[in-house]
Amino acid sequence: MFHKRNPPIGSRPGTLAIPEGSPPPRIRLLQYDASTHRDEAIEDLERLPERLAFEGVTWINVVGLGDEPTLRRLAEIFEIAPLALEDAVNAPQRAKSELFDAHQLVIARVPMQEGEALSVPQVCFFIGARYLLTFQERPFGFFDPVRERIQAGLGPMRRSGPDYLAYALIDTLVDRYYPIAEKLAHELEDLEEEILESAEADTLNRIHRVRRDLVILRRVGWPQRETVASLVRGESSFLSAPVRGYLRDTDDHIAQIMEVVDSSREMAVGLAEMYISDLSHRTNEIMKMLTLMASIFIPLTFVAGVYGMNFEFMPELGHRLAYPTVLAAMFGMAAAMLVYFRRRGWLGGGRRKRKP
Amino acid sequence: MFHKRNPPIGSRPGTLAIPEGSPPPRIRLLQYDASTHRDEAIEDLERLPERLAFEGVTWINVVGLGDEPTLRRLAEIFEIAPLALEDAVNAPQRAKSELFDAHQLVIARVPMQEGEALSVPQVCFFIGARYLLTFQERPFGFFDPVRERIQAGLGPMRRSGPDYLAYALIDTLVDRYYPIAEKLAHELEDLEEEILESAEADTLNRIHRVRRDLVILRRVGWPQRETVASLVRGESSFLSAPVRGYLRDTDDHIAQIMEVVDSSREMAVGLAEMYISDLSHRTNEIMKMLTLMASIFIPLTFVAGVYGMNFEFMPELGHRLAYPTVLAAMFGMAAAMLVYFRRRGWLGGGRRKRKP
Amino acid sequence: MFHKRNPPIGSRPGTLAIPEGSPPPRIRLLQYDASTHRDEAIEDLERLPERLAFEGVTWINVVGLGDEPTLRRLAEIFEIAPLALEDAVNAPQRAKSELFDAHQLVIARVPMQEGEALSVPQVCFFIGARYLLTFQERPFGFFDPVRERIQAGLGPMRRSGPDYLAYALIDTLVDRYYPIAEKLAHELEDLEEEILESAEADTLNRIHRVRRDLVILRRVGWPQRETVASLVRGESSFLSAPVRGYLRDTDDHIAQIMEVVDSSREMAVGLAEMYISDLSHRTNEIMKMLTLMASIFIPLTFVAGVYGMNFEFMPELGHRLAYPTVLAAMFGMAAAMLVYFRRRGWLGGGRRKRKP
Amino acid sequence: MFHKRNPPIGSRPGTLAIPEGSPPPRIRLLQYDASTHRDEAIEDLERLPERLAFEGVTWINVVGLGDEPTLRRLAEIFEIAPLALEDAVNAPQRAKSELFDAHQLVIARVPMQEGEALSVPQVCFFIGARYLLTFQERPFGFFDPVRERIQAGLGPMRRSGPDYLAYALIDTLVDRYYPIAEKLAHELEDLEEEILESAEADTLNRIHRVRRDLVILRRVGWPQRETVASLVRGESSFLSAPVRGYLRDTDDHIAQIMEVVDSSREMAVGLAEMYISDLSHRTNEIMKMLTLMASIFIPLTFVAGVYGMNFEFMPELGHRLAYPTVLAAMFGMAAAMLVYFRRRGWLGGGRRKRKP
Amino acid sequence: MFHKRNPPIGSRPGTLAIPEGSPPPRIRLLQYDASTHRDEAIEDLERLPERLAFEGVTWINVVGLGDEPTLRRLAEIFEIAPLALEDAVNAPQRAKSELFDAHQLVIARVPMQEGEALSVPQVCFFIGARYLLTFQERPFGFFDPVRERIQAGLGPMRRSGPDYLAYALIDTLVDRYYPIAEKLAHELEDLEEEILESAEADTLNRIHRVRRDLVILRRVGWPQRETVASLVRGESSFLSAPVRGYLRDTDDHIAQIMEVVDSSREMAVGLAEMYISDLSHRTNEIMKMLTLMASIFIPLTFVAGVYGMNFEFMPELGHRLAYPTVLAAMFGMAAAMLVYFRRRGWLGGGRRKRKP
Repeated sequence: MFHKRNPPIGSRPGTLAIPEGSPPPRIRLLQYDASTHRDEAIEDLERLPERLAFEGVTWINVVGLGDEPTLRRLAEIFEIAPLALEDAVNAPQRAKSELFDAHQLVIARVPMQEGEALSVPQVCFFIGARYLLTFQERPFGFFDPVRERIQAGLGPMRRSGPDYLAYALIDTLVDRYYPIAEKLAHELEDLEEEILESAEADTLNRIHRVRRDLVILRRVGWPQRETVASLVRGESSFLSAPVRGYLRDTDDHIAQIMEVVDSSREMAVGLAEMYISDLSHRTNEIMKMLTLMASIFIPLTFVAGVYGMNFEFMPELGHRLAYPTVLAAMFGMAAAMLVYFRRRGWLGGGRRKRKP
Repeated sequence: MFHKRNPPIGSRPGTLAIPEGSPPPRIRLLQYDASTHRDEAIEDLERLPERLAFEGVTWINVVGLGDEPTLRRLAEIFEIAPLALEDAVNAPQRAKSELFDAHQLVIARVPMQEGEALSVPQVCFFIGARYLLTFQERPFGFFDPVRERIQAGLGPMRRSGPDYLAYALIDTLVDRYYPIAEKLAHELEDLEEEILESAEADTLNRIHRVRRDLVILRRVGWPQRETVASLVRGESSFLSAPVRGYLRDTDDHIAQIMEVVDSSREMAVGLAEMYISDLSHRTNEIMKMLTLMASIFIPLTFVAGVYGMNFEFMPELGHRLAYPTVLAAMFGMAAAMLVYFRRRGWLGGGRRKRKP
Repeated sequence: MFHKRNPPIGSRPGTLAIPEGSPPPRIRLLQYDASTHRDEAIEDLERLPERLAFEGVTWINVVGLGDEPTLRRLAEIFEIAPLALEDAVNAPQRAKSELFDAHQLVIARVPMQEGEALSVPQVCFFIGARYLLTFQERPFGFFDPVRERIQAGLGPMRRSGPDYLAYALIDTLVDRYYPIAEKLAHELEDLEEEILESAEADTLNRIHRVRRDLVILRRVGWPQRETVASLVRGESSFLSAPVRGYLRDTDDHIAQIMEVVDSSREMAVGLAEMYISDLSHRTNEIMKMLTLMASIFIPLTFVAGVYGMNFEFMPELGHRLAYPTVLAAMFGMAAAMLVYFRRRGWLGGGRRKRKP
Repeated sequence: MFHKRNPPIGSRPGTLAIPEGSPPPRIRLLQYDASTHRDEAIEDLERLPERLAFEGVTWINVVGLGDEPTLRRLAEIFEIAPLALEDAVNAPQRAKSELFDAHQLVIARVPMQEGEALSVPQVCFFIGARYLLTFQERPFGFFDPVRERIQAGLGPMRRSGPDYLAYALIDTLVDRYYPIAEKLAHELEDLEEEILESAEADTLNRIHRVRRDLVILRRVGWPQRETVASLVRGESSFLSAPVRGYLRDTDDHIAQIMEVVDSSREMAVGLAEMYISDLSHRTNEIMKMLTLMASIFIPLTFVAGVYGMNFEFMPELGHRLAYPTVLAAMFGMAAAMLVYFRRRGWLGGGRRKRKP
Repeated sequence: MFHKRNPPIGSRPGTLAIPEGSPPPRIRLLQYDASTHRDEAIEDLERLPERLAFEGVTWINVVGLGDEPTLRRLAEIFEIAPLALEDAVNAPQRAKSELFDAHQLVIARVPMQEGEALSVPQVCFFIGARYLLTFQERPFGFFDPVRERIQAGLGPMRRSGPDYLAYALIDTLVDRYYPIAEKLAHELEDLEEEILESAEADTLNRIHRVRRDLVILRRVGWPQRETVASLVRGESSFLSAPVRGYLRDTDDHIAQIMEVVDSSREMAVGLAEMYISDLSHRTNEIMKMLTLMASIFIPLTFVAGVYGMNFEFMPELGHRLAYPTVLAAMFGMAAAMLVYFRRRGWLGGGRRKRKP
């Protein structure tokens, strides 16, 4: 959950903490305009500046952060501020965007399923006037679909600037949230089905189903409410003033519905608690019964067992009054136990009396 | 809960992901003004543009999204932006509204009970200056009542523009939240009655009833407070300054009441927890009692049982001191057990002592 | 909880859904100025307009909504918009206020104890320049005290306009929240006392008492903080700039106190959970003990019981080694049981070991 | 929790509801300027106006509210509006401040430990240009330290106006929150230590300790974050623009830390729940074991007990095959019980199988 | 948690409450500009003013607060307001910043692990035009890394003013939050692994894993959403208007994803509760079974035990019909018990019937 690599406490701002195990940077240059495109690996960083003279869009994709001098030289070429370079390298940072003189910095985080674990690597963008510079810690393959679209040359990509390219890449990254969220939601649905199927109590099932529907209604209803409210307040010339008045009425309706949904959710939670409490109460009652029976009869059975032993020398056995005496003693033990139970309040049907 | 159909990751913006099983579009044209109205099915899309010359209101209702060329052609006719078309087709989206040059886009979600499950299909509106274009995934019948009102010709509908028509349709859709919320609230009321009736603990019932009343009071009280506050701050010429001053006092009253209601809710939750904790505590006490009795007497009964066996060759049985010896051993076992229980803190009335 | 009467889905805006069982409207006219006042029942609605010529304040109180034509005629006389009439009639609505050309609409909700249940009927006000029009569903008697004050002629009422009258009525309605909130708070106090008195665990009682005090401190402290902050930021000429500076220091103090109170509340909740968890843990330990004793000795006692049966033909009984064999078998059974328990981790004092 | 004394519903605004048991007002006058000070009890209210001519600061301290004419006369002398007088007398109100023409009204609430209970009386201030008027319900002694400071004549008090006096008094009142909050926090610490010490489960202790540290970190971290953010946004001339840029980086750091703290808190709560659930699961497993053993062997032991009875006339005892028959029957009963348990799903190790 | 040292209630504002055990102040002077730097301990406070004439940056670091006259003299030299001095000395305060004429006051809190406990001492900064004054309660060593950087003379430090120095120190302090938050997060991870490993129920494990992933997704997703939204709304010249339009679409996507994540979290909590409730229900069922078996057979076994006793004088034993009579009585007892159980609703499979 928390594996930010930090430089040691008190180090100078801009100190780089290169992620462990990050490979040395491989730099790939993709240049295109409406008519041409060229894909090239940059081995020697010093040949990069001359390539930036290209009139179209230049995309410099840096994969791997494992060499500080290379990164420092890149920062020099693209006039990257030390703190911005720190953001790009000391991954992971929070997603954020920041405007510099030379470019716009955007940091995005992308969830990825790696085996059982969920990791969330970062991708860093510097959007310049004629170039886009991207940094990734390792080769993730996030950008392959967009690269193919550039090569295919369809759509507005080839006719647009580096901002459109950045948008296309960010959109691709955001799309990667879907399958993760979907997978978790499906896992929950599976679990739900499994639990509901094998659950033994019908009442709980029904409460749970109502709660689930309320959650859905709420999720759908709030944006609906915002939408109607924005129509009422909005500036659209397609809606006349009287119709806005009518829509305010619709707004009232949906506000009222949402309040019922929220109250219902609270009541549903309360009911589930009530049900469980009542179950505890019943278990308590049953335990009292069990304890009562066991506490009275187990000692008595023990006494009977004692006099059922086959020792030859048990003087009591021959006494005339031994049997009725033992029976009376057993009766007395049971009565004493009942008195003890009544004193502790463990008898009497489980309902504590209200004060008069 | 989450069945958004998405185009593959990295596809071009505006790529359509037509919902599976959506039938091919059937387009229905309804044109009306104060005096005339005409209802027509459009089979050939190319005849649509000429119909749009009509002076009154034109409502184009598209049901079914199962044919991309038709949708693309519609987008062309009505100048729908690619991303807007994507919103209309890649259902379901969040409810939202957005203003374009040619029209206002509104997306609404409508909850629907389908058998046991709750589904929330979307309806998409494009409100133009003289037309209304609506998209639905399947024929849901949401719009039938409004269509009948148009045909009947009553009310302001026939004298108003497409914005009023859009309002009437949206209002109809919002009205569909009511029966769903009502059904869930009724289901909860049923469950509540059922649980309260069969619950065995009076105290829990009383706490629950207080909580329910507090939820109601809160739901009613907050809008009441907003209302009074809006009168105090408002610009109504019907309220003089001194009366606003008095109303501020009323505002104080209701603020104070709402704080008591909120504190009371928190206390009610705390009390319910306290009650349940105490129940656990009592169950624990009872279990200690049961365990004590069982742990002491079950082994002793076993010993008695052993010497009650009828084997012919049990040398102990004939010893003179066997009986008292066994009795003493039993007493010793019981005492050892008691010592063990006291050491583990399982004796002594259940109250842990405070430190001195 | 949710008994809004709605017109059928898709009906025209402004359609009335008169509450079931609402009696036909009875209209009562109260006219007063500083010197005169007149109280009159209006039987014939057509005589109402001429009465509105009165120079002083006219209060038209409509009780009962059970006749649509009467309501429509009233709407006509007072120029009530269709949607406003719908708000007045299709009770209950959310409390709200809305400004129209002819008057200010205010809808208020009033909690009422009806037997066991809490109902929250609505009252609707139209505040005009010279009149006040009120609608109630049934005769509730909410307004009687104000009517008596008008007749008594004391205070500023008779010298003020309809806005003061509306204020007096709304204030009366808000006052009705007090006894309901007070009753619920008292019920909670009773429950608290009852539970605390009979609760067996001192620790829980103490945690609960601290929580209750923290709730009180919080409820009192937040408005206190707002008050000090408003003095710091306010425009009062009675507070000089240096004193505001001092007050900012006081503001810091109370902010710090409120943070401690909030942290303490969270800790108190955590402690209560911790206590209950520990209780569960102890119960679990006790159950292990019980299960261990029962599982070992109950089968052994059964075996002893078998050989205590008095059948004449039990060949084992006569064998010389039968008794030691059976004893050994019993010992073996007990040992096997202990091994099984140890394997399942049910032995060993209840503390799961930390990893090394 | 809720003991506001209210005038009857519907009474005129400004109606006083004097707290029960409040003694009749005793009025004390304290007048001072830089050089002089005088302390005097006012017996006759009519002599008050002439004293107000004093050039320095006049503090009129009213203790006790038990006489309406005196209060009304005071209101007249100081031009107190009826609603303001109501706020001063109908205690307790919410803390608030309000500006009038003649003075600033401030209402403060002061928590006080009275025996076991926490009460929160109110103190009311009217801050005028040259006077301070204070109302208390009973003599609480809140003001004694300030009175002594006035008499001692140290500090800026004697050279300042009534606003400084009001500040000094309010600050004294806010200081009284500290010991109460401190006492509750200490009580919680005691409880924590007590519970942690006697708790048997190490895991719970560790979770709780982490939660406590997270609560502390959160309480300290949020104001820290606000502080850094205010430096970034602030207008201080002592911070240059580049340093603000650096501080924005620090702001990012602390935002990220706070997110980890919040996620960790949520995870800690989830872990505690998980632990308790697992404990319930284990208890359930143990109970199954116990129930299985008891259900199988208790009936069998009973059967053995029956044939161990010593009646003379038990025809079965003499049959040759009785013993093996009974043994077989016992075996059959045990097998039937096992089948029943397996059918109910109470056998099989406690893990419910995942669907294939 | 709450160990603020306060001066007694009602003392003058600005009264110092020096932390117990704070050593007497040791003052250290560090003066530097781009070319020189000097580090000096100030023994005699009166020699401080002449040193302030230095043209570069002067850092006065005060460690220890244990001598009021020294502190007062320092306040005089640097024109520190009494309340600001109080903030510096009466530690700990909330983190805050405040602007004075002579300097900017910043109070920071620094979490520190001291043995088992977490303490959060404060550091106080006064940032002047040419000096920085810092106060610490005890020598914590927080500033050592920065002092070394000054001596090393690298980076912009030596060329910047006291504001940069203050930034460097505050950044160092904020960095100290990381290891604490990290330690707690790691401790939680350990606990999680430990609990998940030893937990017996697979279902709970899976629910927990989904919850954890949802927490991560949420923590990463919200800043991502803010980032995209800020690009849409921002003023960056590097993003063209059409691309902003496209990004609004991306914004919609991520809003929708976040809603699914939030709903899923709520569902996961509900599912966990459902699972635990069902577990309680099962335990209840098992307890019923156990209680039933025990309550029926334990008394019967006792009766059998009585007639298995070996007393010589037990007249019943000789009766011809004694055995069948006793068997019938046993049967009757068992039947009575079953009737009692059915009456209490403890028989019938555990499902409470729905009302017809």
